[in-house]
Amino acid sequence: MPNPFFKNQGPFLISEILNALKIKDVNINLNNKIHDIKDLPNSNKDEITFFHSKKYKDFANKTKASFCITTKSLKNDIPASCVPLIVDNVLLSVSKITSIFYPYAVNDDFDDSVTNINETNFKDKVIYGKNVLIGKNVSIGKNCKIGHNTIIEKNVFIGDNCSIGSNTIIRNSIINNNVKVLDNCVVGKHGFGFFPNKNKNLRYPHIGIVIIEENCEIGCGCTIDRGSMSNTVIGKNTYLDNQTHVAHNVKIGENSIIAGQVGIAGSTIIGSNVKIGGQAGISGHIKVGNNVEIGGGSGVIKNIPDNTKVMGYPAKNIREFLRDKKW
Amino acid sequence: MPNPFFKNQGPFLISEILNALKIKDVNINLNNKIHDIKDLPNSNKDEITFFHSKKYKDFANKTKASFCITTKSLKNDIPASCVPLIVDNVLLSVSKITSIFYPYAVNDDFDDSVTNINETNFKDKVIYGKNVLIGKNVSIGKNCKIGHNTIIEKNVFIGDNCSIGSNTIIRNSIINNNVKVLDNCVVGKHGFGFFPNKNKNLRYPHIGIVIIEENCEIGCGCTIDRGSMSNTVIGKNTYLDNQTHVAHNVKIGENSIIAGQVGIAGSTIIGSNVKIGGQAGISGHIKVGNNVEIGGGSGVIKNIPDNTKVMGYPAKNIREFLRDKKW
Amino acid sequence: MPNPFFKNQGPFLISEILNALKIKDVNINLNNKIHDIKDLPNSNKDEITFFHSKKYKDFANKTKASFCITTKSLKNDIPASCVPLIVDNVLLSVSKITSIFYPYAVNDDFDDSVTNINETNFKDKVIYGKNVLIGKNVSIGKNCKIGHNTIIEKNVFIGDNCSIGSNTIIRNSIINNNVKVLDNCVVGKHGFGFFPNKNKNLRYPHIGIVIIEENCEIGCGCTIDRGSMSNTVIGKNTYLDNQTHVAHNVKIGENSIIAGQVGIAGSTIIGSNVKIGGQAGISGHIKVGNNVEIGGGSGVIKNIPDNTKVMGYPAKNIREFLRDKKW
Repeated sequence: MPNPFFKNQGPFLISEILNALKIKDVNINLNNKIHDIKDLPNSNKDEITFFHSKKYKDFANKTKASFCITTKSLKNDIPASCVPLIVDNVLLSVSKITSIFYPYAVNDDFDDSVTNINETNFKDKVIYGKNVLIGKNVSIGKNCKIGHNTIIEKNVFIGDNCSIGSNTIIRNSIINNNVKVLDNCVVGKHGFGFFPNKNKNLRYPHIGIVIIEENCEIGCGCTIDRGSMSNTVIGKNTYLDNQTHVAHNVKIGENSIIAGQVGIAGSTIIGSNVKIGGQAGISGHIKVGNNVEIGGGSGVIKNIPDNTKVMGYPAKNIREFLRDKKW
Repeated sequence: MPNPFFKNQGPFLISEILNALKIKDVNINLNNKIHDIKDLPNSNKDEITFFHSKKYKDFANKTKASFCITTKSLKNDIPASCVPLIVDNVLLSVSKITSIFYPYAVNDDFDDSVTNINETNFKDKVIYGKNVLIGKNVSIGKNCKIGHNTIIEKNVFIGDNCSIGSNTIIRNSIINNNVKVLDNCVVGKHGFGFFPNKNKNLRYPHIGIVIIEENCEIGCGCTIDRGSMSNTVIGKNTYLDNQTHVAHNVKIGENSIIAGQVGIAGSTIIGSNVKIGGQAGISGHIKVGNNVEIGGGSGVIKNIPDNTKVMGYPAKNIREFLRDKKW
Repeated sequence: MPNPFFKNQGPFLISEILNALKIKDVNINLNNKIHDIKDLPNSNKDEITFFHSKKYKDFANKTKASFCITTKSLKNDIPASCVPLIVDNVLLSVSKITSIFYPYAVNDDFDDSVTNINETNFKDKVIYGKNVLIGKNVSIGKNCKIGHNTIIEKNVFIGDNCSIGSNTIIRNSIINNNVKVLDNCVVGKHGFGFFPNKNKNLRYPHIGIVIIEENCEIGCGCTIDRGSMSNTVIGKNTYLDNQTHVAHNVKIGENSIIAGQVGIAGSTIIGSNVKIGGQAGISGHIKVGNNVEIGGGSGVIKNIPDNTKVMGYPAKNIREFLRDKKW
């Protein structure tokens, strides 16, 4: 499926890619066309992938990509069908190449394609407030309400029976049926992902989107960032309380309940039927199982297996926590 | 006093109530009129109450309600003057019946009754910014200022000498004299109260309001939710710093100081002259006494007596905390 | 340099100052003119300073101010060139006198000088959204973008190549080149600084501003308060993630990375190349060195030396933290 939010500007000749990476002396046909850049498991023939850490070795072994941005020390783990492109800093190079394919996925400047909803076809279809702004190619289903000063940026999809509050901004997102997004939220901006670089950090593109499944409710003042290379997903019937922050690439399962001021850091996977108490923080790149309960104020910094109750900082089994505290 | 925000649609015949609860074979006069639904201590003759947990037994014993939604195992604790209505899930049933009496207290769709302030009588009385929206039956006192893009929804009462910032939303609230509510706040939306239910959670009505007493200041980006069956109250001369979250039914006393990013969970009672440090979290349904000091970052999960200083997670007496940490 | 945001209304006669403080019987020329009020190290001849705590004794010894608001017990630490003005409550008195010099620095009512950007000279120079409001004497550089519903209040300076998001409010701030401030932020309101006072707290003036150095990025929903007597500064190329709160007088160095929902309390100094994990809290009036890493969720309550990694609550060396937790 073509990504409606971040259009791939490719294909590009491999010679253009090599130029951008300042790589010379690679013994390949410079007229090869490269169609996309993807991560190891998802890339295909005539696409570029990247491999920057031993821990992805198993994916590297099986990648179908034709080219792989990697380092001298890692290159032996990619298959013979894949040409290594050796660089010093893999992620920085990925950032460069992704910006070529997806130049509009780096910055999050405001959408200047919007018009007031009363100048659009939605004026007879949606119940809307004052100063509602709608971008190009937006889709809004039946029986929807959109509050005052709310901005729905270009290409956003909103299903049926949704209620969007006031002063809310939605971009790069698919909002399914019966979803409520309350006031003062920002959904779909890029995540806090960049390469630290003295004097001027380098942002990498965020071509992922936000998907909110049906029957969800998103409280006031929440921020849900879109993914970088994958999507940020809020599962069906999951409720988020006020001032919750969901970072890029996070996936939350179904029927979960996330209380106020919780923060979930980038790329973490949360299961279904999970309850997270107020102000808890979940580190990035970890996995929280199904049916897990996380006490309010906890700091979760490692994987949590299914059917577990945890509490504390760092969070541990709630029985241990209460025993150790002796209070 | 009639609730100006959530009008009671009653009375209803008890036969209608029984139908909604799918209760048959109750030996009562089906033409009895029921005027309201209230909690155990506040309900009166010809009203319904509910009793779902042993810990409210003392209130149940003395209720004046004519009917009580409860379970088989609890019904013996209500007085003979009160007819038990036996259900499987008390809170779910309460939700149903409250929605009948207060159908507009379930959803928080934006107020589409608003008009631009310069088309209202307030245009000569209030100092206001651009794009200020005012709902029906709003009352605003003398010498008030309302910033740009701010929305004062229907029935809201604002006293004299108040200053409301920009991009703020106020609904279902009574704001007393000399109060400041700064920018980007949301005051008066429903709380995070609902019955978890697979595939589609069930919200219960929030018929409580937010009351902010005189001389308070509410920082930027705060969220103060209204109550479900009681009100959320911020006491006189209490100051809240930025990004504070106050959940439904919370009551905070006078002269208290709540620093930035604090979260107070539902139904908790905070005393007067209380100081709460930044990012502290207070669990729901607990009681914090007068003259209490809570250290920044603390997690308070049990009642705190008057005149106590606590710190830590879970919060304990500050001397114990510092001794145990040995840092 | 004259402060463009808070204009000094002086000079005032010392007799007016004495009246305001209700001080009689001081043996001085009542026609002396006082030009400003400043802290101990920065004040000069014909200015007033204040001295309220022994810990500033070294500064008091060397102050060049002509007058010093202080107490009976502290007055002997100021030089003979400086006349002590003895009061009961130094800070309350400072608040009074500062309000005389800077009457507009006490309240943060919305800026009613703004006009829609399309009625200003910026309409051909800036790429802007709908309903953008610009105050008097605002300066905006080349190649800037300003999103929908954003308010740039009077005297704000914005450099070249800046991108300001939607629904954001900026006041009393200097934003340097290549800065991004994303959506729903409030930059430059007064801090949470006031004198607690029964029934009616007393706010003291905030005459400091916010300075954001070049290449910074400020995430969505952030609040950055301006200083009281000094400025709040975000150093070059420092990035703040969503929902971060930076209190008054805080200074953050260059190339620092502050993750989501972090809170930094008033007057704290953070070094350069500092990394702060999500939801960490930093107490007020402390100093965090250069090249420090603070784990997510930590609570930092004392100074942290350069080149240290800390974690926990209270935060300690990360090796100690992990050893003590034995998890």
